[in-house]
Amino acid sequence: MHILVIGGAGMIGRKLVERLLHEKKLGGNAISKLSLQDVVPPVEPREKPFEISTRTGDLSVPGEAAALVADNPDVIFHLAAIVSGEAETDFEKGYRINLDGTRFLFDAIRARAYLPRIVFTSSAAVYGAPFDGPIRDDFHLTPLTSYGTQKAMGELLLADYTRRGFFDGIGLRLPTICVRPGKPNKAASSFFSGIIREPLAGEEAILPVPDTVRHGHASPRAAVGFLVHAATLDTSKVGSRRSLAMPSVSVTVAEQIEALKRVAGAKVAARIKRKPDPLIERIVSGWPQEIEGKRARELGFRSEASFDEIIKVHIEDELGGKIAA
Amino acid sequence: MHILVIGGAGMIGRKLVERLLHEKKLGGNAISKLSLQDVVPPVEPREKPFEISTRTGDLSVPGEAAALVADNPDVIFHLAAIVSGEAETDFEKGYRINLDGTRFLFDAIRARAYLPRIVFTSSAAVYGAPFDGPIRDDFHLTPLTSYGTQKAMGELLLADYTRRGFFDGIGLRLPTICVRPGKPNKAASSFFSGIIREPLAGEEAILPVPDTVRHGHASPRAAVGFLVHAATLDTSKVGSRRSLAMPSVSVTVAEQIEALKRVAGAKVAARIKRKPDPLIERIVSGWPQEIEGKRARELGFRSEASFDEIIKVHIEDELGGKIAA
Repeated sequence: MHILVIGGAGMIGRKLVERLLHEKKLGGNAISKLSLQDVVPPVEPREKPFEISTRTGDLSVPGEAAALVADNPDVIFHLAAIVSGEAETDFEKGYRINLDGTRFLFDAIRARAYLPRIVFTSSAAVYGAPFDGPIRDDFHLTPLTSYGTQKAMGELLLADYTRRGFFDGIGLRLPTICVRPGKPNKAASSFFSGIIREPLAGEEAILPVPDTVRHGHASPRAAVGFLVHAATLDTSKVGSRRSLAMPSVSVTVAEQIEALKRVAGAKVAARIKRKPDPLIERIVSGWPQEIEGKRARELGFRSEASFDEIIKVHIEDELGGKIAA
Repeated sequence: MHILVIGGAGMIGRKLVERLLHEKKLGGNAISKLSLQDVVPPVEPREKPFEISTRTGDLSVPGEAAALVADNPDVIFHLAAIVSGEAETDFEKGYRINLDGTRFLFDAIRARAYLPRIVFTSSAAVYGAPFDGPIRDDFHLTPLTSYGTQKAMGELLLADYTRRGFFDGIGLRLPTICVRPGKPNKAASSFFSGIIREPLAGEEAILPVPDTVRHGHASPRAAVGFLVHAATLDTSKVGSRRSLAMPSVSVTVAEQIEALKRVAGAKVAARIKRKPDPLIERIVSGWPQEIEGKRARELGFRSEASFDEIIKVHIEDELGGKIAA
């Protein structure tokens, strides 16, 4: 089985590659080749249990998509995207990469007339306020960002190209990934991870919103699990609605902090400093608080069951089991 | 006020032009210029109460959109589209005209950095079965045709470009237009008009589905009313969800026939011949039976109140008040 990961250098891409290298198979099929592509050079794994090729390129450049699918990869993970903030500040770049790049890929597959599985990462950003409670699977897509718009358009293409028999596509609306490893960034959602990650590392973290704010989370490990499950799922059970809201753990910030106390102690949780930021509060207030993800659960997608578990996954996967006392 | 009608040669486009010529103003503003564009030459009106220009061109050809908005039309009606059947049989043409053409237009307006009103005709084809009763305004878009997919993508672009301040856009999800003037065509929906139009003209009509089939209708006159209202509406009341399901009259075929009897007599209605067509029945079974159109009604959009009224509009507008006895 030949697997192509587009956006293979990103955080989720790297973790997906780690898992594929570890398991050496996907859905019971031995992996014979893994192709990694990204706009920055993907890191080539040291251990190579099967053929691995890396390629640096821009999916929105004509010819790139055709080159990627020239040898008919069986499973394609399309993770490449301009993130929300940049798609908002650079309008043309967002449409070029997130919409045109996706369409070039889909058309390149169509031109080859074979039927690969394609896993497309969409986002909870396809939803836009106002909401009337937890978001059901049939809640309409009314994105309030260009990024969310581009993802929603990608979902529509994915469903139509699948319906036409050009590929077998599954779209995953990923929740906020928490705890993100690495440094804080300028995303408005950064603090959701920061208030867990920094205290566990012995550092202070800023909480810019009231602790009544509710939001849905899944770990990076769960996100990789979603991707693998989507790649191996019996899609005859999915029907024509090919994009699925992924399960997540919906908690308030207060519940996040309580979980941190339970898992790591009050001293660690005391490293969270409250410093209200009205801009971040305003942005976050437009986000979904809870997404049901019922169809996805019924189809076997699994997130963590509690925020405690999300913290424990971070400690295991990123901190080697160690907490800064 | 300068008005541009893209797709000005089509049935709705021609009726819109008739109304603008008759009223000579739009929303209280005198019309100074009317530009008509279509892929086939638009008919130039004989009477010209204001400047009228016509242009034949393909919106999906680079440069065409820029030429159309070069003199900053204040109101743009974007009616041009490859219809459902052709978008299904010619995949590339459908995406080229319905998606790329629309995006070229939107980008051409963006490049000019002015803020026109743009009225975009979408369609009930953005909805796809299964449904769980009458379609609410927040029902999600799950099109089951490439045409519906392209219209849904156009709606997403319209909302995002409006949010970014490139134009002031309103999208109208038009119901099935009934009674369509002219000849029967190969559209699966053709019979909905045919069973009224042909008997009124003294001809037999074929009914290919059981008379329990329910569907929503609005007259061509109502459709033009939707367009004019959308062009003159106070969009501050619309919010960020810029596409609206238009009101319609939801009736069964049996109710259509009863209305025809009431309006034109049993002898006219007896010209309907039942000849089941399983293919048409199957296609129609995937269509919405009833679309609430609540937001649109609240914003002042009006369809006919009954199917009787729809028939009377046809008799007035197309038959000069005369029925073939």
